[in-house]
Amino acid sequence: MGVPNAFYAQSGGVTAVINATACGVIETARNHRHRIGTVYAGRNGIIGALTEELIDTSKESAKTIAGLRSTPSGAFGSCRYKLQSFTENEREFRRLIDVFRAHNIGYFFYNGGGDSQDTAHKVSQVGGTLDYPIICIGIPKTVDNDLPFTDTCPGFGSVAKYVAISIKEAALDVASMCESSTKVFILEVMGRHAGWIAAAAGLAQDKPGDPPHIILLPEVPFNRRLFLNKVRDTVKKCGYCVIVASEGTQYKNGSFVAHSGSKDGSVDAFGHTQLGGVAPTLASMIKVKLGYKYHWAVADYLQRSARHIASATDVEQAYAVGRAAVEFALAGKNAVMPTIVRKKDKPYRWTIGEVPLARVANVERKMPKSYISADGFGITAKARRYLAPLIVGESPPPFRDGLPQYTILKNQLVAKKLKPFRL
Amino acid sequence: MGVPNAFYAQSGGVTAVINATACGVIETARNHRHRIGTVYAGRNGIIGALTEELIDTSKESAKTIAGLRSTPSGAFGSCRYKLQSFTENEREFRRLIDVFRAHNIGYFFYNGGGDSQDTAHKVSQVGGTLDYPIICIGIPKTVDNDLPFTDTCPGFGSVAKYVAISIKEAALDVASMCESSTKVFILEVMGRHAGWIAAAAGLAQDKPGDPPHIILLPEVPFNRRLFLNKVRDTVKKCGYCVIVASEGTQYKNGSFVAHSGSKDGSVDAFGHTQLGGVAPTLASMIKVKLGYKYHWAVADYLQRSARHIASATDVEQAYAVGRAAVEFALAGKNAVMPTIVRKKDKPYRWTIGEVPLARVANVERKMPKSYISADGFGITAKARRYLAPLIVGESPPPFRDGLPQYTILKNQLVAKKLKPFRL
Repeated sequence: MGVPNAFYAQSGGVTAVINATACGVIETARNHRHRIGTVYAGRNGIIGALTEELIDTSKESAKTIAGLRSTPSGAFGSCRYKLQSFTENEREFRRLIDVFRAHNIGYFFYNGGGDSQDTAHKVSQVGGTLDYPIICIGIPKTVDNDLPFTDTCPGFGSVAKYVAISIKEAALDVASMCESSTKVFILEVMGRHAGWIAAAAGLAQDKPGDPPHIILLPEVPFNRRLFLNKVRDTVKKCGYCVIVASEGTQYKNGSFVAHSGSKDGSVDAFGHTQLGGVAPTLASMIKVKLGYKYHWAVADYLQRSARHIASATDVEQAYAVGRAAVEFALAGKNAVMPTIVRKKDKPYRWTIGEVPLARVANVERKMPKSYISADGFGITAKARRYLAPLIVGESPPPFRDGLPQYTILKNQLVAKKLKPFRL
Repeated sequence: MGVPNAFYAQSGGVTAVINATACGVIETARNHRHRIGTVYAGRNGIIGALTEELIDTSKESAKTIAGLRSTPSGAFGSCRYKLQSFTENEREFRRLIDVFRAHNIGYFFYNGGGDSQDTAHKVSQVGGTLDYPIICIGIPKTVDNDLPFTDTCPGFGSVAKYVAISIKEAALDVASMCESSTKVFILEVMGRHAGWIAAAAGLAQDKPGDPPHIILLPEVPFNRRLFLNKVRDTVKKCGYCVIVASEGTQYKNGSFVAHSGSKDGSVDAFGHTQLGGVAPTLASMIKVKLGYKYHWAVADYLQRSARHIASATDVEQAYAVGRAAVEFALAGKNAVMPTIVRKKDKPYRWTIGEVPLARVANVERKMPKSYISADGFGITAKARRYLAPLIVGESPPPFRDGLPQYTILKNQLVAKKLKPFRL
């Protein structure tokens, strides 16, 4: 058999730093060549394992792999593809094990959010069921920051920094225009069920009353009357009003504010509704009821791919969980996920911990009530204490001719050994 | 009378670097205290001159004024307020001269786009008519890059850099998701009648065929069939399609594509239609006709306030036109605007030139045909040669705790000497 190889894959929505995790995995594995052979990366996540499209990362130079640390998005391709349970789709699991066996894969590293940790957990169980020994380590990643047990999720700190900086800058813009032009600015940010990203915009406030004046979180039922009153009062007091809205902002009955807008409401492979459009919906509400001139922005992918303004803390943590995943595997741990453990708020001190995948899978962490201000339109000092360290430090990529130099891999596939598999 | 004072005001949509121009004006004036007394800044642009709300910039320390160089948006407030002609509204011009006389203002520096250069020109003429000697210098500023005679307009280089970087990053995101999720990404950018900003996104391409695959310019009539064909062909060839659309993208008959979307179509004080919403409109067109999963972003104010990623070249030019404006005034020039004169493309060499305001006012520079690719969906090598140097260099603001430290002025008003004036 020889030294077992490793399989690494990126899953779900990508981030500004998921490649920093890949860098941590590959560099660490390369430091242990006597125990880990080649790191194969799944082309487009777990789909690559099923279709036997395995990228041979050994074809990439040390310099190229190092470049992943400052390159956003998923260098090997990601996917939205959720494995069913073994009883529901035994065929898929048998195929996975066939591919692992054919390529002597002894380690499975799966880098993603809650759904992906569920996949990693299932694979670890099936290894036992089908009598193929494989070590499965989940690696946390999600801009939504909604994984439990870890202090934060790599990817979140950078989007938090992007949103806080963007709203600070846009607020200065509105403040300077409000006398004779725009009075209301709305920025729509990601966050389906958890308001972590919108909450991070609150870091832009240097003192109480600073913009953003209103933060809309999915955790707080949207009340149109209270919202419009707050907008009107803020414009009267400050001359303008800056709003940050989670895409998942919803009414008490659970229907999304965005759905009264222009989006199609389609559903992705994980069963999540495709959101977006809360900003224009709020804008027209304000226009009709209050008559203010408005501008709105939807950051969408820009927020989660903005490696140019990534948080240095986030980059470091993303690398650290990748390195820890390999170290865990080498230490014989299985079916676990490395976590970030906070030791101290200020200065921020953290270390790496671990949690069994069985406890992580499909658990969604919402914002605690204690992080949300009494009126529901802002964050508390406690939230600020939690969020502040996550955006600290800059980690600019190399620039040439005014543009970031991002790393593009060769992504050379290993020769297939098995028959084709239909997804 | 003593040494005459100066009036400086910011007008129209603000930029990431208009305060760098203010910094250039104030620092240069301070170096010539024997010829220029105090620089008064208009609170909210020309409105501040009419209402006699004059900010005393001498109350700000040298360090604070220096901080303006790295602070986005209009530190004194801007406005959308266009002076009518002298015959249409003699009352306003008489008021302006009254305020100038009351505060011994001998220099008028007006920092803005085409409409503002028109205002500066009118003031210079009225000074003669009403026998009040005043030196009027227009200072160029506009993210739209549509002022004639100058190689570029301060503010444009930074938004160009923001858009090129953002689309480069978002394209990596879509590329990694397209196998099983999003296939089309649309970024809507500013540009009412000129496509300069959208064109700059083309700088993200390292080689032909790289994203953005489609750039929609107001200069090229939008053809729905050709557009949808190009989207489909691109997805078939590349697996995904990245689109940058000017807000002013329009059909052959001049109607805006955005107007079929969700925006209100309101009109601002300059008679410009308030745009936005072309991205969601295109997205639903694609969804209905081609069925692809899409994401869209609207950068809006984020693009023009993004001082964190400003072009160092742009910052330098913004400062230089401010400095030149004061130097022109001191050299006895009148009714002129400093321009950027390109000496060489690569490496970029430029110097300061000048143009009479009479020739600038209300002339809009569109993209030359030679900058637009044959199929109308991209830019040419010539456009690239023009645009490339404008985004070169980074000029990050100071950061603390992960956030840029932007300068907030005291903005202390001078005591009024005249009766109130109703706008």
